[in-house]
Amino acid sequence: MLFSLGSNKTNMDPALINFKVLYVLTQLVGLTMIVLVGTWIGQHFGGLGGTSNPKLEFNWHPLFMTIGFIYLYGNSILIYRGFRTTRKKTLKLTHAGIHLAAFVLTVIALKTVFDSHNLASPPIPNMYSLHSWLGLSAVIIFSLQYVAGFVAFLAPGLRENYRIAMMPLHIYFGLFGFGLAIASALMGLTEKAIFAITNPPYSTLPPAGLLANVIGVLYVVFGALVVYLATEPSYKRKPIPEDTALLTSSSANE
Amino acid sequence: MLFSLGSNKTNMDPALINFKVLYVLTQLVGLTMIVLVGTWIGQHFGGLGGTSNPKLEFNWHPLFMTIGFIYLYGNSILIYRGFRTTRKKTLKLTHAGIHLAAFVLTVIALKTVFDSHNLASPPIPNMYSLHSWLGLSAVIIFSLQYVAGFVAFLAPGLRENYRIAMMPLHIYFGLFGFGLAIASALMGLTEKAIFAITNPPYSTLPPAGLLANVIGVLYVVFGALVVYLATEPSYKRKPIPEDTALLTSSSANE
Repeated sequence: MLFSLGSNKTNMDPALINFKVLYVLTQLVGLTMIVLVGTWIGQHFGGLGGTSNPKLEFNWHPLFMTIGFIYLYGNSILIYRGFRTTRKKTLKLTHAGIHLAAFVLTVIALKTVFDSHNLASPPIPNMYSLHSWLGLSAVIIFSLQYVAGFVAFLAPGLRENYRIAMMPLHIYFGLFGFGLAIASALMGLTEKAIFAITNPPYSTLPPAGLLANVIGVLYVVFGALVVYLATEPSYKRKPIPEDTALLTSSSANE
Repeated sequence: MLFSLGSNKTNMDPALINFKVLYVLTQLVGLTMIVLVGTWIGQHFGGLGGTSNPKLEFNWHPLFMTIGFIYLYGNSILIYRGFRTTRKKTLKLTHAGIHLAAFVLTVIALKTVFDSHNLASPPIPNMYSLHSWLGLSAVIIFSLQYVAGFVAFLAPGLRENYRIAMMPLHIYFGLFGFGLAIASALMGLTEKAIFAITNPPYSTLPPAGLLANVIGVLYVVFGALVVYLATEPSYKRKPIPEDTALLTSSSANE
């Protein structure tokens, strides 16, 4: 059942009311962040384009990274606590599914930035900046997490004690990759603002620069809310009767 | 007693051996990070200077932020778990003392960057960049935390239930401010690399650019280690008999 927090009176303790308010706020911040990135590239950098115009092809990079590697990544993390009355098996598949969508958008976002560098004249070097080092590290951590999470928690056959041992690492590296994605996005905004906001320059804080800073603040607020909602103990999802239809223990896999 | 993990045989369960190894690693990463920042500004940007040379005065900014707002901030967070056989009252005073030293270095680091902007000819605008917005936000969060933490956990008189209610917020905003400090440092490195590594440019990854990237990676590794050591439940400090000499409950204040 989708977003059924309000429909189940037995769940509505004060902690869950707080959770619900912050969860809705998180969505509003996340969606605003995406709309403002779209506005930023549309109003100030010419909008989206294909390989015939490397500067416009680049613009897919911040847009798809924001949608995939920040918004969907964060929402996938929150799926267990946000949809707590849904059975565990469905939540796991949804978690894997949203992460897959995030991964596809992220790969496209990587493809467009490499294209925009290689097709520019003269070409722009790849992978020299700290943004690129840490951003690609975040993508690699995300990918390894996906494979490890699939093997540990979705594929059958792994012994229960291994699953229990894997869970804290899965949570830690999931949140670490998410934080690193946000830090990389902040560096990416900084680079783009310095390189592309030149007339008048970024240092005079023209509308394009102000918007970049506001987007950066929203990235941080979104990230802070996701991490808080995902780690506050009183918001933890409790097992529901339907979970026991599964062979795996629900308490161990949350 | 300073760093007495090894001297108390009863504490040496496997979790604490892991903690000790990672704690030493954290210190090595942190000290390497400081040495490399010193090398970076010394070898590539002319070293340190006073108000007569704004470019050299600027160099105090990354050095003191790295020592104060990253290394000391992180170590102050870890003091309870790193020196677990020391009594609680001493740990609290040490925590407040290291944070005070971090604050002093941070204020000097802010003063030198404003000076270096204002005294340059032509002057460089202040507070326009995302780095400055988020960096100053981190300093403000840190300062509010300091005041709130002092009132809640050091000053006498606050009722025990308020202290208990404050602790999760103190921990959350402490770690959030620390993460934001690191994200700000990464943006600062990115700015400095783009602005100051010009001949040959940052995009060709000359030694000064490579060193900037390595420092950024070390910031992330140091931050990841501190957050892990501070949040892993099995590393939590347990109350010791000496703590009960205090009027305040030790379990509530950790």
